[in-house]
Order: sequence, then C-alpha cells, then structure tokens
Amino acid sequence: MKKELGAKNLLCPVPVTLVGAHVNGRPNFITIAFVGVLDYSHVSVASGKNHYTNAGIKENGTFSVNIPATRQVKETDYCGIVSGKKADKSAVFETFYGKLESAPMIAECPLNMACRLVQTLDMPRHDVFIGEIVETYCDEEVLADGGVDFEKVDPILFIIYGSDYWRFGKAFARGWSVGKDLMK
Amino acid sequence: MKKELGAKNLLCPVPVTLVGAHVNGRPNFITIAFVGVLDYSHVSVASGKNHYTNAGIKENGTFSVNIPATRQVKETDYCGIVSGKKADKSAVFETFYGKLESAPMIAECPLNMACRLVQTLDMPRHDVFIGEIVETYCDEEVLADGGVDFEKVDPILFIIYGSDYWRFGKAFARGWSVGKDLMK
Repeated sequence: MKKELGAKNLLCPVPVTLVGAHVNGRPNFITIAFVGVLDYSHVSVASGKNHYTNAGIKENGTFSVNIPATRQVKETDYCGIVSGKKADKSAVFETFYGKLESAPMIAECPLNMACRLVQTLDMPRHDVFIGEIVETYCDEEVLADGGVDFEKVDPILFIIYGSDYWRFGKAFARGWSVGKDLMK
Repeated sequence: MKKELGAKNLLCPVPVTLVGAHVNGRPNFITIAFVGVLDYSHVSVASGKNHYTNAGIKENGTFSVNIPATRQVKETDYCGIVSGKKADKSAVFETFYGKLESAPMIAECPLNMACRLVQTLDMPRHDVFIGEIVETYCDEEVLADGGVDFEKVDPILFIIYGSDYWRFGKAFARGWSVGKDLMK
C-alpha cells in the first residue's frame, strides 16, 4: 500500500561533501549534501542563497568538492553548523591548491575535485552551482588496482530530512551482470 | 601524498534509481545513477543522449524517479542492460500512477517520486532532466516515527567508474551535533 508524503525529495542517500571556495580572499569550507552527478565531468552543488560561500564562488568562478571520511565527521559537521560570516574556517583543515588557484582543497579528505563554475541555476532558495571538474586529487592510500576503493575512502552519507550521518556499506552484486538472468 | 587522477567525477556513492517515462505511449524504465539533489523539491537525472527514454520525457514533460531496494537488484540491473528500443520493459514491474498520468511508477520500489520536467541541461553526451517533484509515494512498511527509515528502504548504491552494487550502511553520528565539540 502506497502512502503520499507530499512533494518530498527522498533521492537518498547522498554523499556529504565539503565545498571549498575563496571568500573575501580567504579559504572557506561549507558542508553540503545537496549534490549531484551530471555526467563524467560535471557536478552540481546547491547552497542556500543566504550562505557566505555563494558570493565567493560567483566572484571567482571556481570551487572545490571534497569528500570527507567518517574520521572527519566532527570537522565536517562543524563546517555545516558555523557560518564563515561568524568564524574563520580556513584553519579547520590543512589546505592545498591544484590547477585552480582560487579553489582551496582539504588535504585530510581522501578525494578532492577542483571545479570551474560553468552555470548557476537559480532555484527559489538555493544557488545550484554547476562545476566542470578540472582535476581530481586523491590520497594514494585509497587507490587499489588503479581505481579508487570507496571502502578505503569511507565516505559519510546523509538522508535528506534526517539528522544522522551514515556509513557506506558493502558490495553485494555485479552491475551489467546480475540482471542477465532476466534476459530471454 | 595526493595523486592526480585526471578530471574524474568521484562524487560517490550515488543512489541507483529507476527512471520511469512513457515512450511511444508505453511505460518504460531505465536504470540511472547519474542523479542529483538540487533542493527539497527538485532532482536531476542525467540520461545518455542515445537512450530510448529521453524522447518520452521530452514529449510528455514528466518522469518518475523510483528508488529500488537491494531485493530488486536483478530487475534494476536488467533495466540498465536492455534498451527499450529492443525490449518491452513495461512488464518487468507492476506499474502504478499518481498525480501525473504520464509518469509510470514502480509498485515494488519502496519510494517513488512523480516529477514534472522543468528544464533540460544540454551536456555533451547527456540530457540532464531537472524535475520538480509533484508528489512522493512510499510503502507504509518503510515508515517509522512519521519519517522514512532508509534502513528499511534498503537502497542500492553505486560508485561511478565501478561495476558493483553496494549496500547502505549504519548511522554513526548525529548531524548539527557532533561538530559542536569544535565550537569555542
């Protein structure tokens, strides 16, 4: 039996990210889980219009998407609680730069993507920043067989309307394979 | 030590969805993991330009996003392997309709969102469909304390560039809480 919940976005779980940008000339990081995969080289990041970060992304046309590990959950949560308007978050993490000089990235996060802003969607309460990934950086410790091992990345997941952080689970089936049983 | 991987989209894990649409007047379902949360009522779904589904979404201006459970992994994988051009996928699942008459939804999936197409982003190899969620449907069995219990939903997760399907994990920390330790 189906129940109507209203127009609720339950496209979950989503990975929790830390979005980096220069704001007023200083690195700032904000916790964002309203994110999306547009294709192999483009991401979307939605930030409430009242957030301190947005002006910096618009001004510089660059930002970073950092994937924190569960061991960084305190720092990750902190960057979502405290606004850059009130606190200098530039020292919460060790910052590094890659190919984009105004896209600060977080050394402690196992994965980092430096992005160039290519479009901004104007939603009622959010700016949705569409970024072209210019370069992806990762810790050598999370590589295995030439690819990234997400069990080693140990990302933090989130459920919209929820208030918990969740762990990633285990692989249980092969794609482009397990469904072949249904082919006639 | 950071390693450069090229411009790789590693915004992972993402939830695996089944996107429903009417194509040539018949329900069709395609497996899509290139998805995103834009805000509390908008989603993005990116479908390769050569896919059978795209014309139907453009023609009707509607689609559905269904969240399959791990027990539907065979059917989910099948809908990603086999094109609607070659096979009638309308009978893979039991179909139902909600507020949008051309947005077929999957009864077996614990969560379903009926969406109205509001914008299409033209990426090099994908159409990115932006949908406004009109109504969300869920199985009563996955409700708890008035909200949706994602351990009961038991969604399927995916890693871009990978080929495995993954399980969701366990809650391990509270949001807007665990980071307070770092506030001075």
